[in-house]
Amino acid sequence: MAGKDDVKVLGVVVSPFAIRVRIALNMKGVSYEYMEEDLTNKSELLLSSNPIHKKVPVLIHGGKPICESLVIVQYVDEVFPGAAVLPSDPYDRAVARFWAAYVDDKMFPPMVAFLLAVTEEERAAKAEETLAAMAQLEKAFGECSGGKPFFGGDSIGYVDLALGSNLQWLETSYQMFGVALLDAVKTPLLTAWAKRFVEADAAKGVVPDTALAVEFCKKLRAR
Amino acid sequence: MAGKDDVKVLGVVVSPFAIRVRIALNMKGVSYEYMEEDLTNKSELLLSSNPIHKKVPVLIHGGKPICESLVIVQYVDEVFPGAAVLPSDPYDRAVARFWAAYVDDKMFPPMVAFLLAVTEEERAAKAEETLAAMAQLEKAFGECSGGKPFFGGDSIGYVDLALGSNLQWLETSYQMFGVALLDAVKTPLLTAWAKRFVEADAAKGVVPDTALAVEFCKKLRAR
Repeated sequence: MAGKDDVKVLGVVVSPFAIRVRIALNMKGVSYEYMEEDLTNKSELLLSSNPIHKKVPVLIHGGKPICESLVIVQYVDEVFPGAAVLPSDPYDRAVARFWAAYVDDKMFPPMVAFLLAVTEEERAAKAEETLAAMAQLEKAFGECSGGKPFFGGDSIGYVDLALGSNLQWLETSYQMFGVALLDAVKTPLLTAWAKRFVEADAAKGVVPDTALAVEFCKKLRAR
Repeated sequence: MAGKDDVKVLGVVVSPFAIRVRIALNMKGVSYEYMEEDLTNKSELLLSSNPIHKKVPVLIHGGKPICESLVIVQYVDEVFPGAAVLPSDPYDRAVARFWAAYVDDKMFPPMVAFLLAVTEEERAAKAEETLAAMAQLEKAFGECSGGKPFFGGDSIGYVDLALGSNLQWLETSYQMFGVALLDAVKTPLLTAWAKRFVEADAAKGVVPDTALAVEFCKKLRAR
């Protein structure tokens, strides 16, 4: 079993992309050294490990860097024994990859644009776009989970990691701007799912307090 | 072995995303029915098979639709026997996934923006951005191929499909605007690789004539 000497994660505590990697490692029971990055003063290790994008997360396994969060999660799934992240059936794997990409391409960008919007008009437009993506994900949950607690079925899987790693930002949207991107009327399935997600063993202590995300968002907005 | 009754591809003849799917199926020796879509008048089959993005390509296998080109290519690799698309080693797979995502995220968008630019300034800026991505990919080829003919080693692999499916647009850039995104001085390795790629059995007849891409680009620019 890989241990702390062997596995490092360079991350930022509020980054969905780092959070999903940490939860995937927890699912596998892999202990790792977590190294928090300061994005205003990136470490030499980050710059040398991810010279192309210079972004978190980076997984360093046995001295070799792996970059891009969904690439890392798949690597973790393939290389470590333990709970499966992706389904074993190729069609189900394709569906999971489709929805994980949907989160990153269609939900995350408007959500960030909403959180950082300068004008009310821009904020309203981006809220609407994010809400439309959340509505699609609500439907997808119904189709993927087949009545089970997670997108992945009985336990957390690939789409759970992709979306669940964003929960602190969904909550921040409400706390800072009063916009409920998750709510019990519009997205009842996802609202119940989110509660299960943060309480799952692998996610405990990794999905950060909303207060941290709010503080991070305020700093970004002040720049 | 799956046959034409079982496998359909909805595509557009100049679309890199459809081209990579078709070449992957050829690598596996899977025969399929290819259905050309008119993007100005999408078929009911496309709209019902990919209701989320309404985009090509869609692979329909045994009546089930799979969407998003790199998701489809991985599905094809997992479900059909024959030549491997992704490397077998998890680290090498992660590296291949990294560079395929790089093509789609960092090379394709500025290349399209370059081809469709309205002002000279915009075109020059996007040409520069695309050239920078091509320079990175030239370096990546040296690192990934280890002196062998393809990113994938002795035969076409995942990164070859991702980049090689764009060759008609790289050539179009030169024919329409005199900007050589591939050239023997700046990108000598990729220039030689591109010739090998289009001549590979699986790619023959799939990478379209540049004339078709030029015509398509002119139509898009006229809109």
